[in-house]
Amino acid sequence: MELKGLGKAAAAVKYELACMPEEEKNRALLAAAAGLIRDTDRILTANAKDVADGEAKGMHPGLVDRLRLTKERIQAMAEGLKQVSALPDPVGEVLDSFTRPNGLKIEKRRVPLGVIGIIYESRPNVTADAFGLCFKAGNACILKGGSDALSSNLAITESLRASLKECGINPDAVQLITDTDRAVTEQFMRMNEYVDVLIPRGGAGLIRAVVEHSTVPVIETGTGNCHIYVDAYADLAKAIPIIINAKTQRIGVCNACESLVIHESVRERFLPMLAQALREKNVELRGDERALEAVPDMLEATEADFGTEYLDYILSIKTVDSLEEAIRHINRFSTGHSDAILTEDAERAERFLNEVDSACVYVNASTRFTDGFEFGFGAEIGISTQKLHARGPMGLSELTSYKYVIRGNGQIRS
Amino acid sequence: MELKGLGKAAAAVKYELACMPEEEKNRALLAAAAGLIRDTDRILTANAKDVADGEAKGMHPGLVDRLRLTKERIQAMAEGLKQVSALPDPVGEVLDSFTRPNGLKIEKRRVPLGVIGIIYESRPNVTADAFGLCFKAGNACILKGGSDALSSNLAITESLRASLKECGINPDAVQLITDTDRAVTEQFMRMNEYVDVLIPRGGAGLIRAVVEHSTVPVIETGTGNCHIYVDAYADLAKAIPIIINAKTQRIGVCNACESLVIHESVRERFLPMLAQALREKNVELRGDERALEAVPDMLEATEADFGTEYLDYILSIKTVDSLEEAIRHINRFSTGHSDAILTEDAERAERFLNEVDSACVYVNASTRFTDGFEFGFGAEIGISTQKLHARGPMGLSELTSYKYVIRGNGQIRS
Repeated sequence: MELKGLGKAAAAVKYELACMPEEEKNRALLAAAAGLIRDTDRILTANAKDVADGEAKGMHPGLVDRLRLTKERIQAMAEGLKQVSALPDPVGEVLDSFTRPNGLKIEKRRVPLGVIGIIYESRPNVTADAFGLCFKAGNACILKGGSDALSSNLAITESLRASLKECGINPDAVQLITDTDRAVTEQFMRMNEYVDVLIPRGGAGLIRAVVEHSTVPVIETGTGNCHIYVDAYADLAKAIPIIINAKTQRIGVCNACESLVIHESVRERFLPMLAQALREKNVELRGDERALEAVPDMLEATEADFGTEYLDYILSIKTVDSLEEAIRHINRFSTGHSDAILTEDAERAERFLNEVDSACVYVNASTRFTDGFEFGFGAEIGISTQKLHARGPMGLSELTSYKYVIRGNGQIRS
Repeated sequence: MELKGLGKAAAAVKYELACMPEEEKNRALLAAAAGLIRDTDRILTANAKDVADGEAKGMHPGLVDRLRLTKERIQAMAEGLKQVSALPDPVGEVLDSFTRPNGLKIEKRRVPLGVIGIIYESRPNVTADAFGLCFKAGNACILKGGSDALSSNLAITESLRASLKECGINPDAVQLITDTDRAVTEQFMRMNEYVDVLIPRGGAGLIRAVVEHSTVPVIETGTGNCHIYVDAYADLAKAIPIIINAKTQRIGVCNACESLVIHESVRERFLPMLAQALREKNVELRGDERALEAVPDMLEATEADFGTEYLDYILSIKTVDSLEEAIRHINRFSTGHSDAILTEDAERAERFLNEVDSACVYVNASTRFTDGFEFGFGAEIGISTQKLHARGPMGLSELTSYKYVIRGNGQIRS
């Protein structure tokens, strides 16, 4: 069976990768970057087929744009691999070490996760990006991209595998599932014997499906119903540019602001100013009753609005009478990604930071900073919205596990 | 619906627990310990009912023993809560902090996981133990014990809840699922909205069922097909007591040795000595062809033997011609719990430690040391055999997550 074969091959190569010296990994990443440039024509030809097929099927222009590769986009993929090669290797780091009274020396050492499965949608650049990060952290990866991008993903994977082979490395470090049958994807999600973790990258529907069907451990990423709470003690002049930035600087991303929570005491003063600024940016507002009082010409927000990640030029507005109510509202509707308070009161800020149960909690800044590069990690495989293993932006370290190495000289337990 | 009610109550109390000062948690743990002593008679009466029901149903005497509580066992449970109260509180620890070039101050801070579900079998002491660890790490817990121990678990949970109430703490910090219907347990495993992580504690069958049915993230614990490899360069005099200890010091535990791997070059010399020592301990041997040559009166081992966690006085024996073959064999059959090499050759030891993909890898010591107390963690909720989140013995820190706290003064992303 083809899929089991991929699993076996990945599990076989993981031991080699786990012990591979950093220099060898870096050399391979640079070779893979050069390989993508060398294979540009072949990749573009494959991509043109996917794009033509998509257009023929009447694919949404936004999706066609995500699918389309250009010489520049391939260069950016190569650049990404080069950047990853320059990052420090997390593998082998000694996280802790201690000697027990019986003389046992115990070392907690960072090791790769092993085999990482990535399930993603139409952007073919994920193929190279995910390989680069998994590989640098010593992991084999099995990729399952969207069927719309199959030719592109295949061309990219073939290029990466050829470069590994040139470096004398087993090319099964990166493998692509080419069978687009949904049953195969579901089988992939249950390959506990061969796959250590699954990371879905895509929309909320994809992530739900993976959580629903997977028996392999999953890291949920990237669903962001992010809030900004304008407190009674907010500096209102500071608040406008922060909200504009979080809402409009880039619309379709998980760290964009989707909902504004506003304290009653500043509602009447602030909302008209904000509404004007947001309308200049073509943002549609949907508010609760009291927001509507302050700015009559907006739509009324329903409960469903407060639970929606719009990824669009829309902002919901909720009025609260207290910091407590704001925290309660956010903890109810947030997806646990990024939420911010705008306030000049340090005590109230601290309370918000402690009590809002999200991966990233901000005071007086845009939620758009939740990002591996903005955090200085130098890379990002995704943003985890779960609490197990990793939370928030995930860089190379988050693609590792650890093991305990115990050295004795004959100790037995009494 | 009752189960959803438990979930909501736990999710409601988790915010209170996450911010609870260490002193308050410790006071509650000491009160809970005193409460168990005070309620001893009531707990013993409830337990006597479970034991009588079990015996009437013809329960295996070993299981009845696990189920039975005594005054001493209740004292040990109370002692366990006291010990947990004395451990340092992991919550709030700053794991990392840095300032970005744009002035954003980012702090990575340890926080509770939130709501932990524990699914366990017949030992009622888990009720108090699991509560103590979850609570100290700031988590609410929802417990689902075996139906055979329902009366006992209920009496213990009621005692714990009464003690919390006395301390002015919301008793929903610990809740017990009393509905023994399997459908309810399966629903519990899919309560992603309210439960952050599930930890099954019990046999391999229970753990498989939880992994199979759960959509909530799971930490797999405690399946141990542990190996000891006697290398060509082993000190054979040291080897015998280590193997005896790992195999026989306690039979039914996950860190006991189940399989011996032996290098061809020491097979003929070592196996007869070992066989004699193990037989004095009533251990049955099952060997491959070459092991049988050295010790003719043992059973022949099948492939199934190499894959079996006996939890019994049985040891399988595999002969190998090289260190590489030993590592390959162990990586194939090990459950990734604990595996050891016995050798005086440092280079070969290092190779084994690097290449065997298990949570705990040993040189020249018994696998029986894989244990939170033996590692000095002061507590243990279980031993993780997966790579995500936690690996090996899990103490209080492993019952936490982290969040990023980001402080700005108006930063926006450009």
